[in-house]
Amino acid sequence: MTDIEIAQQATMERILPLAHEKLGIPEESLIPHGHYKAKVSLDYLETLKDKPDGKLILVTAISPTPAGEGKTTTSVGLTDGLNKIGKKATVCLREPSLGPCFGMKGGAAGGGYAQVVPMEDINLHFTGDFHAIGLANNLLAALVDNHIHHGNALGIDQRKVSWRRVVDMNDRALREITVCLGGAANGFPRTDGFDIVVASEVMAIFCLSTSLDELKERLGNIIVGHTRDNQPVHARDLNAHGAMTVLLKDAFQPNIVQTLEGNMAFIHGGPFANIAHGCNSVVATKAALKLSDYVVTEAGFGADLGAEKFIDIKCRKSGLKPDAAVVVATIKALKYHGGAELPTLKEENLEALEKGLVNLEKHVSNVREKFGLPCVVAINHFAFDTDAEIELVKRKMAHLDVKIVLAEHWAKGGEGAEDLARAVVQTIEEVPADFRFIYDDETPLWDKMKQVAREVYGASDIVADTKVRSKIKKLQADYGNYPICVAKTQYSFSTDAKLLGAPKDHVVKIREVRLSAGAEFVVMICGDIMTMPGLPKVPAADRIDIGPDGKVVGLF
Amino acid sequence: MTDIEIAQQATMERILPLAHEKLGIPEESLIPHGHYKAKVSLDYLETLKDKPDGKLILVTAISPTPAGEGKTTTSVGLTDGLNKIGKKATVCLREPSLGPCFGMKGGAAGGGYAQVVPMEDINLHFTGDFHAIGLANNLLAALVDNHIHHGNALGIDQRKVSWRRVVDMNDRALREITVCLGGAANGFPRTDGFDIVVASEVMAIFCLSTSLDELKERLGNIIVGHTRDNQPVHARDLNAHGAMTVLLKDAFQPNIVQTLEGNMAFIHGGPFANIAHGCNSVVATKAALKLSDYVVTEAGFGADLGAEKFIDIKCRKSGLKPDAAVVVATIKALKYHGGAELPTLKEENLEALEKGLVNLEKHVSNVREKFGLPCVVAINHFAFDTDAEIELVKRKMAHLDVKIVLAEHWAKGGEGAEDLARAVVQTIEEVPADFRFIYDDETPLWDKMKQVAREVYGASDIVADTKVRSKIKKLQADYGNYPICVAKTQYSFSTDAKLLGAPKDHVVKIREVRLSAGAEFVVMICGDIMTMPGLPKVPAADRIDIGPDGKVVGLF
Repeated sequence: MTDIEIAQQATMERILPLAHEKLGIPEESLIPHGHYKAKVSLDYLETLKDKPDGKLILVTAISPTPAGEGKTTTSVGLTDGLNKIGKKATVCLREPSLGPCFGMKGGAAGGGYAQVVPMEDINLHFTGDFHAIGLANNLLAALVDNHIHHGNALGIDQRKVSWRRVVDMNDRALREITVCLGGAANGFPRTDGFDIVVASEVMAIFCLSTSLDELKERLGNIIVGHTRDNQPVHARDLNAHGAMTVLLKDAFQPNIVQTLEGNMAFIHGGPFANIAHGCNSVVATKAALKLSDYVVTEAGFGADLGAEKFIDIKCRKSGLKPDAAVVVATIKALKYHGGAELPTLKEENLEALEKGLVNLEKHVSNVREKFGLPCVVAINHFAFDTDAEIELVKRKMAHLDVKIVLAEHWAKGGEGAEDLARAVVQTIEEVPADFRFIYDDETPLWDKMKQVAREVYGASDIVADTKVRSKIKKLQADYGNYPICVAKTQYSFSTDAKLLGAPKDHVVKIREVRLSAGAEFVVMICGDIMTMPGLPKVPAADRIDIGPDGKVVGLF
Repeated sequence: MTDIEIAQQATMERILPLAHEKLGIPEESLIPHGHYKAKVSLDYLETLKDKPDGKLILVTAISPTPAGEGKTTTSVGLTDGLNKIGKKATVCLREPSLGPCFGMKGGAAGGGYAQVVPMEDINLHFTGDFHAIGLANNLLAALVDNHIHHGNALGIDQRKVSWRRVVDMNDRALREITVCLGGAANGFPRTDGFDIVVASEVMAIFCLSTSLDELKERLGNIIVGHTRDNQPVHARDLNAHGAMTVLLKDAFQPNIVQTLEGNMAFIHGGPFANIAHGCNSVVATKAALKLSDYVVTEAGFGADLGAEKFIDIKCRKSGLKPDAAVVVATIKALKYHGGAELPTLKEENLEALEKGLVNLEKHVSNVREKFGLPCVVAINHFAFDTDAEIELVKRKMAHLDVKIVLAEHWAKGGEGAEDLARAVVQTIEEVPADFRFIYDDETPLWDKMKQVAREVYGASDIVADTKVRSKIKKLQADYGNYPICVAKTQYSFSTDAKLLGAPKDHVVKIREVRLSAGAEFVVMICGDIMTMPGLPKVPAADRIDIGPDGKVVGLF
């Protein structure tokens, strides 16, 4: 059965009584969106602030490969597994982006018997959060061009407008455009472009803010462009932040849905994992921690990018402290890291596996030694994994003294992740976390980048052109205390997507640097970053339809 | 008090029990969106199909003026009035467009004590319908450029792509743009542009379809562009219509909310009243008719545009038959039609009023004689209207033998519209409707336009350049049986916005003709039609904010 078929056959419980039963949320504090999705009122969450927090478990992964690792699936499976062994556990995930559903990727709500439901709703418009974020972004863009059109009292240099528009669609035609054509009534022509909604700074701000006041404050701090003499112009200067906050006020309440096994899932926010930090909202994670004994959450890409940003950006800003990490790997992905070709990954290949294991080892050692987190390795099991392969992983990793657990949630749901759940609970109980950041706030921006590159990526050094170096120097004065957000390929520890395994002593080149003044981080761009994907030759939209029984088909 | 203050002070009932109590809809057939908005399931509506319909009342108006007439307010007030006098009445309105909220216009959910609530929600994202429509539109646009990029098997001529993108924002910068810049990876450069969501043909299709199957069929019929040898390329040829329908399937269920007095309001769909037909969805109107004894609905602009399209497009296609019409006028607007200046409209001016009355007379005579509908005139009362003015209106209109009723719903709610409600009920009971279309399906397109111009607008003739005439001739072959949809200024019966009152023997020039093959009408453009508004120098966004008490301020 496909994911969507499994999801459609599930018997869901009504979300209001279920959230009350599972987490004790009073029904009047839930705002229903249909019978199976709800938002949790901020006023209610405010009443929980003196309650103790549950344990926070970060699910991260080896460097991604085309073979897939199953981080979301493992997060859901682990949550169901924890509930199976009697723990009150909740999962916190990112909202899927609608655009990619119609492209290549399909849905993003877990898979197999480890899914969140209602699957179609979550993958399609869900509760409208991304639409609200997109519109808040585009209101600001319209206000910028409108201000210039009507006299430009702030003196914005239209060559230096940096705020782009967004749409929740993979649309390469909009990557680079010219706007304001057609004469005086339409404004001053300039080049521009659209990003996908998840790449909007509004999304990052939305996910890092802890209250509507903070949201508004940060939105006001967004830099939309510069004047002719290079002074920044903020959203606040256009008085845009109030109306933007109004557009976001309902979306800002975290969404709650259920797993196939009726456990609770917060799904809220979903910033890009390259130019932004790639984690669900702080509001949702904090809410889940107040309401559960164990909270499982995921971060984008592999642990070098996702876990590092989770810790150095999300945790630093919010005060969150993870208690353990789960590093997800698959045998086939490890073989790919060891040089096996994609079509051969279902065949036993101990040589490639042994070679590829270095990727897992480096991520595990980072998580334990650099971030100071107790760690469990989850091998997301496929039917074609051989006993010899699994044995090899355990033997080769023995020196790290880390629990390695085979997880079969994809095929078996929570029951298949009970071992993993027990291992995680035991690790949290036995191994105290010695959680730490990679760098301090006071470390200069350049050195922050160097520390991440050396300690996390295994690089020997970082380099940059004079232009980039001088921009970093300039940002240092006003924004030197901000964390950095590295945008690089997710496929390698290095900046070369082809360098699989665990490359050492590579050099990381910073190609460009961008300030996200509202999100409060400095983006170090170390590669080609695509903020507007395209559609493939035969996009998923081609097969997505309403079937004869009225159900959605082709979404996976 | 402002409209938003009145709305915020209202005590709303939970929509699920209320809709059950008022209309008998089982709670399980309602899909809640928060506690005060819901969608009604299509499956449930299907079960009503053998029930008799209630009476349908169309609220239309004199030609709009900057003074405002209050059509939505009167629709809501009349519905509350009907309920006050013991009738089971429901109102059907269009969903407000979000973009204009941040521009000049502010909200569109009635006014004073004749409003639908929750006002902020209805004016902001509501239940997300417009976001879904926008995205379905933009998915098709992305698929068009993607198809061309990946080999263009259909041979679309990129100079002849006619499908534009949309955004729910007043953004003049996007009116005319160049897309696909930046090299081979981004496609073939071409000129393009964005419209506001309400101008999308998807919106018109959404509002005219009676089932998901019909919706999908019509979406497939959309023409996105032409080949080099001028063959039309349809959305169906790109296999886009299935995925577009999936995006729209939830939105397609009509929304239900309440008036300030707890009566039921369907608010669903909202196409432009110029390039489209300007009425709420057929699905909502049909649902309301099955569930109520009286259904009040409105059409955009004055009766020359709104009522004509309501009848010749919406009723023709859906089989709806109105039982009566209410023509809304204000004393100040009539004075404006009679030549009084805007700043003087609060002063008594019998001369201007008498002169301006011709506008009302012509609309009333159209409604009765051309459309064959029993008619009541509602004078939407303002405190500064004098007794002499009201007396004059009644005296001068006496020869038309039409009920003229002063309506005070703005200040007094339903109580202020009881007289109007009684007059409408009495008219329906006493005067049989002799409802008819302006033209037959078989009348050629050119003659359809001529009939509308002569009979409804009072024009002597229509003209067009050779190019336009030959395009009409060409469309006649394949689409000659479609109704026409006239896009012209709403401020005059003529095509000259400055010709107030009731100009006669003017000539209507067709400047351009466009086919909406999915919506199934031919748009006759007889003026400058703006499908993407701009923001004013100080847009409403400037004052919209979240107040200290957490409530929205500045939205009106």
